[in-house]
Amino acid sequence: QGLTGETKAEEVPSEYAIVKEVEKEVPKEPEPMPLTGIKTLVFDYKIVGTAYDTYIFIQQGDNLYIIDQHAAHEKTLYEKLVQRIREGDKAAGQILLKPQAVDLSDEDMNNVEAYKNELNTAGYLFDDFGDNTLLLREIPYAAGDVSPVELFIDAVNLLENSKGMNRLAIKEELIYDMACKAAVKAEKKLSEPEIKALVGGLIKLENPETCPHGRPVYITMNKKDFEKMFKRII
Amino acid sequence: QGLTGETKAEEVPSEYAIVKEVEKEVPKEPEPMPLTGIKTLVFDYKIVGTAYDTYIFIQQGDNLYIIDQHAAHEKTLYEKLVQRIREGDKAAGQILLKPQAVDLSDEDMNNVEAYKNELNTAGYLFDDFGDNTLLLREIPYAAGDVSPVELFIDAVNLLENSKGMNRLAIKEELIYDMACKAAVKAEKKLSEPEIKALVGGLIKLENPETCPHGRPVYITMNKKDFEKMFKRII
Repeated sequence: QGLTGETKAEEVPSEYAIVKEVEKEVPKEPEPMPLTGIKTLVFDYKIVGTAYDTYIFIQQGDNLYIIDQHAAHEKTLYEKLVQRIREGDKAAGQILLKPQAVDLSDEDMNNVEAYKNELNTAGYLFDDFGDNTLLLREIPYAAGDVSPVELFIDAVNLLENSKGMNRLAIKEELIYDMACKAAVKAEKKLSEPEIKALVGGLIKLENPETCPHGRPVYITMNKKDFEKMFKRII
Repeated sequence: QGLTGETKAEEVPSEYAIVKEVEKEVPKEPEPMPLTGIKTLVFDYKIVGTAYDTYIFIQQGDNLYIIDQHAAHEKTLYEKLVQRIREGDKAAGQILLKPQAVDLSDEDMNNVEAYKNELNTAGYLFDDFGDNTLLLREIPYAAGDVSPVELFIDAVNLLENSKGMNRLAIKEELIYDMACKAAVKAEKKLSEPEIKALVGGLIKLENPETCPHGRPVYITMNKKDFEKMFKRII
């Protein structure tokens, strides 16, 4: 001992100790959250099929996800649009090739004037044409198959029903209404690429579990659930 | 009145009354039972898909059937074979291209001799080759992928475990064992024609609901069940 030039670990910091010191100094990046639930569908999965042209069955390993296609699409659209509004942006609108005239009652006209800003933020742009007539120039992007005037009238009705709500809540209601109308309907047959796009959008959401109104977007079962149903296991 | 040659219905039997009389005399054929449950799959249905290569989802109108492919096939084979045995026939056997020698213990040899008739009825044909060796010539039809000798040894083991059962019960156990081995396995991918053949066989059974051991062959859900799960209705 001593002859070989060995020193005690306590005297000179070992390589390990130095590494420890560095670790202390540099704050670690947070570990990425492990993927759980439907978010694991970022990896390989199998589309089993669709029942009632409404509920999509997807299998991955031992898990089976049953997704409500309308609720899933609605939630995805809703989250995208709310995100935009929270960032101070307005919902992307699509300019109508031909502006469309909308006649309103006195009361509706008053509501529209009172909530012009919220309607604009939600993606509706229009000019006052006089005599309770508006000229609708732009409607929210992804408005689905609903006609522009119909969509706008629905939004105006929503204003009528939202009295007493604060302005932010009204904005979100307008967006929700639009998301619901634009979302793919239940009982509409989707192609495989459409299903993949739907799943891809859904799993990116912070909370893909429920639709804006709190209903489940998907249900999870696993192999054991089936084995119990079929009394293969007790 | 009277001038037109009219008579009262009470005096001469009307055409209707004659028909009534004939109906009384000829016993009606029993009405065909209305198709219920999975038996309605004789008509158009949609194969949604298969989860875990085991459970087949089939939709027809508002009903969704989840079929356990192994249990379904097992029950179908079992019923066919039991039917044959009840009609006094023996289970169809397949002649082995090359007879196979099977060596048995003294005890197994005794069991085989004691239940030769039941084994023959179940589709096993063999000759005594002396020194506790049998020459296996024929095994039950549709024995699946199991090797003939393995299948026969299983049948002999079953005899060992069936002491105290009556001979008919042992025959049915032999058939059950064979049906289970011959049936398509869980976790085997089936093609669409194979699924259709499976469904076609199943719906012809008197009782397609349970497998020979009483486990469910299929589970029925309907659209309302889904609407409740997804809180679309309460």
